[in-house]
Amino acid sequence: MTGSGTGTPALAHSVRFAGDAVEILDRRVYPFERRWVRCATSEDVAVAIERMVTQSSGPLYATTAGMVLAAREARHEPPGAAAERLRAAGARLIATRPTNNHIRDAVRAILDDTADGPLAQASGEELAGAVEVAAAGHDAAYRARSAALGRHAAGLLHDGARVLTHCWADAYLIATVEAAREAGKRLEFVCTETRPYLQGARLTAATLVEMGYRPTLITDGMVAAALADGLADVALVAADRVTLDGHVVNKVGTLGVALAAREFGVPFYVLVQAPDPLAPGAADVEIEHRDGDEVLSVLGARTAAEGVAGYYPAFDTTPPRLVTRIVTERGVYRPEHVKEAV
Amino acid sequence: MTGSGTGTPALAHSVRFAGDAVEILDRRVYPFERRWVRCATSEDVAVAIERMVTQSSGPLYATTAGMVLAAREARHEPPGAAAERLRAAGARLIATRPTNNHIRDAVRAILDDTADGPLAQASGEELAGAVEVAAAGHDAAYRARSAALGRHAAGLLHDGARVLTHCWADAYLIATVEAAREAGKRLEFVCTETRPYLQGARLTAATLVEMGYRPTLITDGMVAAALADGLADVALVAADRVTLDGHVVNKVGTLGVALAAREFGVPFYVLVQAPDPLAPGAADVEIEHRDGDEVLSVLGARTAAEGVAGYYPAFDTTPPRLVTRIVTERGVYRPEHVKEAV
Repeated sequence: MTGSGTGTPALAHSVRFAGDAVEILDRRVYPFERRWVRCATSEDVAVAIERMVTQSSGPLYATTAGMVLAAREARHEPPGAAAERLRAAGARLIATRPTNNHIRDAVRAILDDTADGPLAQASGEELAGAVEVAAAGHDAAYRARSAALGRHAAGLLHDGARVLTHCWADAYLIATVEAAREAGKRLEFVCTETRPYLQGARLTAATLVEMGYRPTLITDGMVAAALADGLADVALVAADRVTLDGHVVNKVGTLGVALAAREFGVPFYVLVQAPDPLAPGAADVEIEHRDGDEVLSVLGARTAAEGVAGYYPAFDTTPPRLVTRIVTERGVYRPEHVKEAV
Repeated sequence: MTGSGTGTPALAHSVRFAGDAVEILDRRVYPFERRWVRCATSEDVAVAIERMVTQSSGPLYATTAGMVLAAREARHEPPGAAAERLRAAGARLIATRPTNNHIRDAVRAILDDTADGPLAQASGEELAGAVEVAAAGHDAAYRARSAALGRHAAGLLHDGARVLTHCWADAYLIATVEAAREAGKRLEFVCTETRPYLQGARLTAATLVEMGYRPTLITDGMVAAALADGLADVALVAADRVTLDGHVVNKVGTLGVALAAREFGVPFYVLVQAPDPLAPGAADVEIEHRDGDEVLSVLGARTAAEGVAGYYPAFDTTPPRLVTRIVTERGVYRPEHVKEAV
């Protein structure tokens, strides 16, 4: 089907200002509940990111909003002190989750425009106004870059393509679907459920349903069987980070998708706005290991026998030889050439 | 650790006679609840197998017990009619689940010893007694063959081996662990949770804990990452069926484990008492597809967004080139030679 949903999916706008605070749509329970977590301070935002209230593209918007809160908190500080406080808030946000570079880049962009740039000696009041402008600009740029990426990605998909995706590719997937729809291309989707947080079963599936599709859901262990059965003819995932030499760091399970795709001759496409110029190779990306206990339950209900220890690498690394193409905002690249997209 | 548990694990004896009925330990909720499903008739047993009350080695014991119930039901039938009723019960049991050959073989063995053999014209009373003997004999033989398999499997594992296993290898795994323990070998285990029924998180994990180990649990999507991280040095799974040309049919996800094992140079071992002499190749094995709705929830709680369709191939097929060795009751074989183990 071409998708008949109207309007923008709920997850495309999941961070919002509400008076003095920031509210973040709680992705741990969406779509079963539409609960917004209220963050009164930039520290609250940092904690929300750590606790997985939001993920994928969400932390980018949460970070820019968190920087706005930090600047407001510093509004009455004298010049110098306000800038210092903003830098500290940025460092705190960057420390939340290490693998995706969105947070680091958002903090860097805002500071470069303000406290680490022309406004190093500005008053707290002036800084606060400038951070609001910089934050909104970063958000808008991210949306525009995602839209560009989506147009390039849609160009790779043939009419009628059956797309297997893993986890939740968020803004990149929404942009790809919108561009494919504009081009009149019909698509079908197979989603992995993506344990332990079920991003595929909840976020990807709900958003695709919202956009008018009827995705097929499989468990994470069924990827190879699904491709062996011919259920999909394209594998399409986002990346949390792509290195200059073409390694793809993404939600754990991506590597297994890539291995199965190679085995069954299915192209494996990766979406990322740009490779990380600060990461020449895989060794330059820190893989976040989360608390193993998060593996022992589903939506708060215990699923594992007592006496076991969970192991939870939140991401894995797919080498360039398993990647067919990397789609960036600047176009489509073979992994060995992706550094040209910086 | 070498394992310090004492006694036989609960799942080793999960089908029992209770007066006129058969009780089957409900593996859908074990170990959280120890609930026994009472089956008053062979038809009840068939329904229990279809509904996943038991699985792995369980349906074998349920089948022999179901045949005993069927023979008891036919106790007052005249010669000929009693035999016919037993054959019909066997056919019903075989029709429950098509992929594993345990049920078919158990029915065949009991009928060959009774209604399709020397007792075709016996009275219902005489047949019932003979079926009880044949059923007990088949159970005992299965235990002995599993023990032999376990000794061969333990011989492949070095002291200190870290074993990644998928789903629940039941009697074969218990026998392997017991043989390794007798040989003084320390083992460690990594279990996949095995969605949608969580056999790894519940059955494998609980049994290994019972046997004195502390297994590490990962989600099904983490297999490749775990092997890339060096978490295990052996992959060991059971097979529901092995064909004469060395194809391995086992719980869906096994193929992904095999692909990851090859990628990271980890040996991939398969446990099966014997290949199926009636299955020359993969095309001769029916892969059960279960109701896709079973993928949309965990332990009865909805995990997927509304509007999606689940897809649930219960098994997948791993080609011989991905298999390092197949361990049978007769010894250890390369997959291309496994037909010699018939």
